[in-house]
Amino acid sequence: MPGCAAAAPDSRVRARVLIRPKQGILDAQGQTVERALPALGFEGVSNVRIGRLIELEVEDPARIREMCERLLANPLIEDYEVSLEER
Amino acid sequence: MPGCAAAAPDSRVRARVLIRPKQGILDAQGQTVERALPALGFEGVSNVRIGRLIELEVEDPARIREMCERLLANPLIEDYEVSLEER
Repeated sequence: MPGCAAAAPDSRVRARVLIRPKQGILDAQGQTVERALPALGFEGVSNVRIGRLIELEVEDPARIREMCERLLANPLIEDYEVSLEER
Repeated sequence: MPGCAAAAPDSRVRARVLIRPKQGILDAQGQTVERALPALGFEGVSNVRIGRLIELEVEDPARIREMCERLLANPLIEDYEVSLEER
């Protein structure tokens, strides 16, 4: 039946995962950028934190958190935030 | 005068920059993750793209695009998207 297959490409959900270093964890990349900005003439920048943006299409969005725990993020040192966008 | 100094910490704007590999540019990290997921039991995932999330506080949000062009992103191979959040 058209439109009924769970695995049809148009049943996929586009998801975005934002991954950030946990509060209190050293963010070496962020510190490096924060120190480099004034040398380039950009003053007045603080609290630079650098994380990852992961965008993906999934058939089963309920499993994204598990993917984060097991592969996408390092839950010891990173927090993650998942948002979904129906197609 | 309290609250009037342009450089007061509470005049800072929190900004988020999302940086993505441009369409058509090889995303080696994304491909690696996409290939690793089935081996961990996660089927039905496609179009994985991995970029960076940069969060920062700035006095002058008008300069963020210039920061992206010069330091935060590589405009030859990456697109960036800036969003602001007043405090």
